[in-house]
Amino acid sequence: MTDTTDVTDRVRAPRGHGPPEGCEAADILAAARRRVDPELRRAVDSLPGSMRRVALYHFGWERADGTPAAGSAGKAIRPALVLTAVRALGGDPRAAVRAAAAVELTHDFTLLHDDVMDRDTTRRHRPTAWTVFGDADAILAGDALQALAQRLLAEDPHPGAAVAAARLAACVVELCAGQQVDCTLERRAPGEVSLDECLAMAEAKTGALLGCACAIGAVYAGAGAETADALDGFGRQAGLAFQLIDDVIGIWGDPVRTGKPVWADLAARKKSLPVVAALASGTPDGAALAALYGRRAEAGDLERMAHAVEGAGGRDWAQTQAADRMSRALQELARAVPDPERAGGLLALAEYVTRRTH
Amino acid sequence: MTDTTDVTDRVRAPRGHGPPEGCEAADILAAARRRVDPELRRAVDSLPGSMRRVALYHFGWERADGTPAAGSAGKAIRPALVLTAVRALGGDPRAAVRAAAAVELTHDFTLLHDDVMDRDTTRRHRPTAWTVFGDADAILAGDALQALAQRLLAEDPHPGAAVAAARLAACVVELCAGQQVDCTLERRAPGEVSLDECLAMAEAKTGALLGCACAIGAVYAGAGAETADALDGFGRQAGLAFQLIDDVIGIWGDPVRTGKPVWADLAARKKSLPVVAALASGTPDGAALAALYGRRAEAGDLERMAHAVEGAGGRDWAQTQAADRMSRALQELARAVPDPERAGGLLALAEYVTRRTH
Repeated sequence: MTDTTDVTDRVRAPRGHGPPEGCEAADILAAARRRVDPELRRAVDSLPGSMRRVALYHFGWERADGTPAAGSAGKAIRPALVLTAVRALGGDPRAAVRAAAAVELTHDFTLLHDDVMDRDTTRRHRPTAWTVFGDADAILAGDALQALAQRLLAEDPHPGAAVAAARLAACVVELCAGQQVDCTLERRAPGEVSLDECLAMAEAKTGALLGCACAIGAVYAGAGAETADALDGFGRQAGLAFQLIDDVIGIWGDPVRTGKPVWADLAARKKSLPVVAALASGTPDGAALAALYGRRAEAGDLERMAHAVEGAGGRDWAQTQAADRMSRALQELARAVPDPERAGGLLALAEYVTRRTH
Repeated sequence: MTDTTDVTDRVRAPRGHGPPEGCEAADILAAARRRVDPELRRAVDSLPGSMRRVALYHFGWERADGTPAAGSAGKAIRPALVLTAVRALGGDPRAAVRAAAAVELTHDFTLLHDDVMDRDTTRRHRPTAWTVFGDADAILAGDALQALAQRLLAEDPHPGAAVAAARLAACVVELCAGQQVDCTLERRAPGEVSLDECLAMAEAKTGALLGCACAIGAVYAGAGAETADALDGFGRQAGLAFQLIDDVIGIWGDPVRTGKPVWADLAARKKSLPVVAALASGTPDGAALAALYGRRAEAGDLERMAHAVEGAGGRDWAQTQAADRMSRALQELARAVPDPERAGGLLALAEYVTRRTH
């Protein structure tokens, strides 16, 4: 089994231009969580009856039986990107807490709905909301979170709020489009899925909201559309790099670090990016992989698949793509925030995201 | 079988205070449809790929196979309320077309999702979107329509746009709460459902968005919160009157006019308002109805149920409630628009809504 250090080393920014090593990203994330949680909690508490229960459960603030819990509402990467982008462009992050909460509510709305559609049963190490409360309650709670997100921005007197709301709404359409393509891809035969489609889908599903978070930060710092677009590109490309690395980890990741069995994505016959690259390679290994994906699993098949993806160049392609996307992300970052000192926080978050193994 | 003329006569406003009889409401609705359709169509056309197809189908602009259709996107009551409220308060309806489209998109988002949750197979005389495209596509198209609605308002330079967006988002939460209660009510035993709960649910599901449409019109006319709240109350109470009358028609309506078999709601064991009133009446007829609702249908049961609802006072209660709600609606209207001449269009729409038999 291969550790993923090599992957992440490839996409790490060159030393000397980045932030100091250590826990900076973790500090930024913890600070964002502290700042945004009261706003999030207030929004969720404003929901009526049963939708509040579903949302409190989803955020990890309540157990399924309604008793309080410590909270496990993810890593606050998106709110942290909003606040850190504001700071990088010389704005006051305290004025953007509502916007940061709106981005996080939007993320959670899509998680609630995606889990219903994908029939995923586990999220943040707990049973998904629809498995506990049923499809209807999970769909309605998601709908309500999207509405709460837009309400936070509509009621925010900040001069950037309307532009941020428009960007967030456009991003939701893109997230939905990405999820829609993802649903159809899983139903299609291996040979019918093109690599470009998969990359576009991953960008829409994973990159779009990370990019939007950064762009909203720029808007709240008073920056113009060009800077906001550049920061959108930064978050978007870093998000795609993350997805590529996550897909590599989904096949070759260390079970001790990922908490998943080895070759987990292959066992699920997931059409992840390295797999689709291998299938589209036109190599004998690619053809072998297609045959393995099409037949009922036999002993040793998962190892054979992993070898086939690697032999067809799927792993190398994903690692090179990840490095390329990270490099594009850094170019966009330099365009939006030329001063490396000021860009340090965003860089630390991008590195954190692409280095994560969970 | 009883015609519904008596019901609607009771809730019609006294002559002399209303608009001239005739086709005024139909004219207002047709004009609203003409004004809002291009904006709606532009919004839907901006959707990517498959979500556009689902939305075009839902609005009746395309058939399931993607060929063009004439459109059957409902009666545009909500956009008409927005534009008519603007005019009633001396504003320019042309400046509120985007807001009117946003309200209609919100309505359609909830229809798409409600049909998935309720497993309803027919909408506007056509198969519902989820039966044609599947649950995931219908959920995603609904999500995207909610986002488009908020995007229209966020990009609208009108000074009332942010207040309207906040009202619309709050209304979505109320619509979701109403639908959530509705889903649970259908699962509960007849005796466990209180009349107050049902009325609150009907107000949230049917009244809230009609009220919000009127309130947004007030905001776009530059009116203050008090006037907007009064017009919200007008639309909300008229919506509840409509629901009560619709429920009466669902039991005793003329099949020729409603297009539904007689006693349709009883055959479906629907917990409509007259039924719940009868069940909660404490009368022998109420107890008989509960027994009939609980057992497998025998020949003649539907007629027995209809008699029991009537004998328990459910029909009278619904008609009195409808008249009472319509009277409250007119009080709110007079508060917001004291000049009867100016209030005429809104009154005509409220009468049209509560007189409809389809």
